[in-house]
Amino acid sequence: MRILLSNDDGYFAPGLSILAEHISKIAEVVVVAPERNRSGASNSLTLDRPLTVRKALNGFYYVNGTPTDCVHLAVTGLLDQLPDMVISGINDGANMGDDTIYSGTVAAAMEGYLLGVPSFAFSMSQHNPAHFETAARVAVELVQHIQKKDMPPPMLLNVNIPDVPYDALQGRVITRLGKRHKAEPVIKSTTPRGETVYWVGAAGGAQDAGDGTDFYAVANNRVSMTPLQIDLTHYNQLSSLKTWLDF
Amino acid sequence: MRILLSNDDGYFAPGLSILAEHISKIAEVVVVAPERNRSGASNSLTLDRPLTVRKALNGFYYVNGTPTDCVHLAVTGLLDQLPDMVISGINDGANMGDDTIYSGTVAAAMEGYLLGVPSFAFSMSQHNPAHFETAARVAVELVQHIQKKDMPPPMLLNVNIPDVPYDALQGRVITRLGKRHKAEPVIKSTTPRGETVYWVGAAGGAQDAGDGTDFYAVANNRVSMTPLQIDLTHYNQLSSLKTWLDF
Amino acid sequence: MRILLSNDDGYFAPGLSILAEHISKIAEVVVVAPERNRSGASNSLTLDRPLTVRKALNGFYYVNGTPTDCVHLAVTGLLDQLPDMVISGINDGANMGDDTIYSGTVAAAMEGYLLGVPSFAFSMSQHNPAHFETAARVAVELVQHIQKKDMPPPMLLNVNIPDVPYDALQGRVITRLGKRHKAEPVIKSTTPRGETVYWVGAAGGAQDAGDGTDFYAVANNRVSMTPLQIDLTHYNQLSSLKTWLDF
Amino acid sequence: MRILLSNDDGYFAPGLSILAEHISKIAEVVVVAPERNRSGASNSLTLDRPLTVRKALNGFYYVNGTPTDCVHLAVTGLLDQLPDMVISGINDGANMGDDTIYSGTVAAAMEGYLLGVPSFAFSMSQHNPAHFETAARVAVELVQHIQKKDMPPPMLLNVNIPDVPYDALQGRVITRLGKRHKAEPVIKSTTPRGETVYWVGAAGGAQDAGDGTDFYAVANNRVSMTPLQIDLTHYNQLSSLKTWLDF
Repeated sequence: MRILLSNDDGYFAPGLSILAEHISKIAEVVVVAPERNRSGASNSLTLDRPLTVRKALNGFYYVNGTPTDCVHLAVTGLLDQLPDMVISGINDGANMGDDTIYSGTVAAAMEGYLLGVPSFAFSMSQHNPAHFETAARVAVELVQHIQKKDMPPPMLLNVNIPDVPYDALQGRVITRLGKRHKAEPVIKSTTPRGETVYWVGAAGGAQDAGDGTDFYAVANNRVSMTPLQIDLTHYNQLSSLKTWLDF
Repeated sequence: MRILLSNDDGYFAPGLSILAEHISKIAEVVVVAPERNRSGASNSLTLDRPLTVRKALNGFYYVNGTPTDCVHLAVTGLLDQLPDMVISGINDGANMGDDTIYSGTVAAAMEGYLLGVPSFAFSMSQHNPAHFETAARVAVELVQHIQKKDMPPPMLLNVNIPDVPYDALQGRVITRLGKRHKAEPVIKSTTPRGETVYWVGAAGGAQDAGDGTDFYAVANNRVSMTPLQIDLTHYNQLSSLKTWLDF
Repeated sequence: MRILLSNDDGYFAPGLSILAEHISKIAEVVVVAPERNRSGASNSLTLDRPLTVRKALNGFYYVNGTPTDCVHLAVTGLLDQLPDMVISGINDGANMGDDTIYSGTVAAAMEGYLLGVPSFAFSMSQHNPAHFETAARVAVELVQHIQKKDMPPPMLLNVNIPDVPYDALQGRVITRLGKRHKAEPVIKSTTPRGETVYWVGAAGGAQDAGDGTDFYAVANNRVSMTPLQIDLTHYNQLSSLKTWLDF
Repeated sequence: MRILLSNDDGYFAPGLSILAEHISKIAEVVVVAPERNRSGASNSLTLDRPLTVRKALNGFYYVNGTPTDCVHLAVTGLLDQLPDMVISGINDGANMGDDTIYSGTVAAAMEGYLLGVPSFAFSMSQHNPAHFETAARVAVELVQHIQKKDMPPPMLLNVNIPDVPYDALQGRVITRLGKRHKAEPVIKSTTPRGETVYWVGAAGGAQDAGDGTDFYAVANNRVSMTPLQIDLTHYNQLSSLKTWLDF
């Protein structure tokens, strides 16, 4: 089994190293990741310049582009054959609820899925986590499960792992995405040269975090696994809109 | 009625000028758009540096950030009160089917929607269109419709307009997103300095473009209006995954 | 006479508009300038991606590159024949003493000079100047002087103009570059996400600002004109170094 | 003795690793280098956003900025005391003649010099060199020479090393900068999306490469050491310009 790894924290990120170290024991691994931190890159794709691929001393390939660029380039040009899986991560921080819209980690997996490959995004429940290894072991279990079962159905799975030792995990659970409150306002600041600038504020707290959501699972020390899809059509509004927009 | 306009082609783009010119006749308009072309930016959000806002001679504000940054900054910091609507566009090219995942035009509208504002993305059906004015007139009609009816329900609407004269339009239709074939492979090239580089290839052609889709509507000279939502959860897979992932 | 204009503040900058407006009355003008503010770009040249040229509504060309890229591209590819002069500016702020090392305004002119064209950098003595027109009139006089005299010798001239009304100017003077004190330390700050970041601090104050320097001229309301060269060899150290490095 | 190392090829570049490995045997070494390749960055300084410093697994600090940013930040904020020397390199390619104007390698050393520290730029005579170690040994000799002699006078030294085994070196020589012919024209190309783009062309060949120049030294397998200065004033033109510009 051949597995493509990527992330959005950059090819040098500890979460990616630990993931590669663990997965390479049970499968053939190729790493293609951004040359620098591209957190918040979402699905952005580089169209106005070409991409360069270089190989680091540890054998990882790095690209001067986004997470989406990395997976796109690997799958449609760099690799000789389709990988059997794409795993993105392990991200340094959670990607739950609306975070999935902005996340480069999720985007890298989504690109794999769009290109026909079962894809998985792995994120730790908090920034600067102490237990990347917990997530790496969960990833290994997932891969081994798939190796036993034949290939999975087309699948895009968003996995968030509590930042606790592996033995403290309270199991795995399939979840839906929760929702956050609106983001905090931008924060106004002044540069040393007297210019007014604005920092994007913090993400909102969890709003819909009840039982069944990713927020709830992780808060209860469970691994959260949310199947994602990429058709943004709001099917429930199709008919009501027909009426409402009748002008 | 106060309307926030943005786009992903940059504050100087003709599609935005025409939109502002038409909408400002029927509503109060504020423009906050990227300082340069950010096509393909998706929902990327700038977290590692602060943003600067400047005002162009024509009164448009421009930001050294992404489309999402622009709407986020405007709504959570720059404007005194919530706008009544966000309109993003008029994009120089289509945003149909899977394009919506990558589109900065759609992302700008999505950010408005996430922040609680009815939001609309407008795109011409092809690059270098001849008939931006057709789209501008459709936008005016939509705003006037809303002005007559009280505020709409929370709504994120993706509008694609055939590049034909207004009189050649064959009506409006509520659609679902179609699907494209996989993207073309990356294109390998060599720089003058002998380095191998890769260009992201063309988007795939329409795969699911049957009746009911945005592709179909536009191909038949109809304005396509697709309601979007932002919950990526794949609800249909929730229970099958529970079985499949039981390990 | 055909004159290439560029700058580092971006093609939309007021200083460039005023310059183009005045110079186009006495010569044929082509403007090729960066698409966004590239202050502090120095002589940086873009080698890892290709450049795009677009034309704004006012006829100015803008490039997604540095000031050096703009002049380089214009002279070696875009224009049918060598321009007779390059003028860079009018910069929004001074470029005196050591500033010339970092300045994109000076770099644009330096690129013209390196490519064999008499080149001139124009900068206002302070940020947010009130009197761009003063500099524009000085530029016109310089061009007219050259038009009368035949072509000048190969020349790179760094011009700083006091921010006063034209009638308040106390003449022009040929100067040497002064020197600044060391820059202020970086300023430590914290992002809303808790990361430590550092802003480059303010430039140092004038250290060598005595009679004969650009600092002195401008402080006395005189236009400062400093001829520059681009051979960085420290000729005075050549022989002492031979002794000192004898190992 | 405490030595600050930087470069423009990025903190992961082999030339920097070899330099750090050798120098750390005879002095205390701190590495602060760009997070990605910034070749051609010249003296550009980042003023519109703050800089972030991170520490790699090998102890090197990397900065999301230019070579100049790295040295500036290290000297004016990060280090507790002034370093005794700055060494920039070992660059993957030559920095001779007019290259010094564009070079990020030279710029990093120049920033050290501007801040009062004896500074040295090291570059291999060709791209993808086979003999970085030759340069590392030359650097070690230079540092040892300085350690024996007390501190050198204020000095900015541009060193180019032939890409040959150490034993094939034909000595060291103090040189002046040569000159190159004009750069090759830009190279027109077309993107997969049909846009015209332009690549900056190759640097010109050596024009002034006679005895005494850096080009000549390196072509004869000698280490070239050119003392640089940073006052761009063209002193020889001061008086002739007074006459010429008398208008």
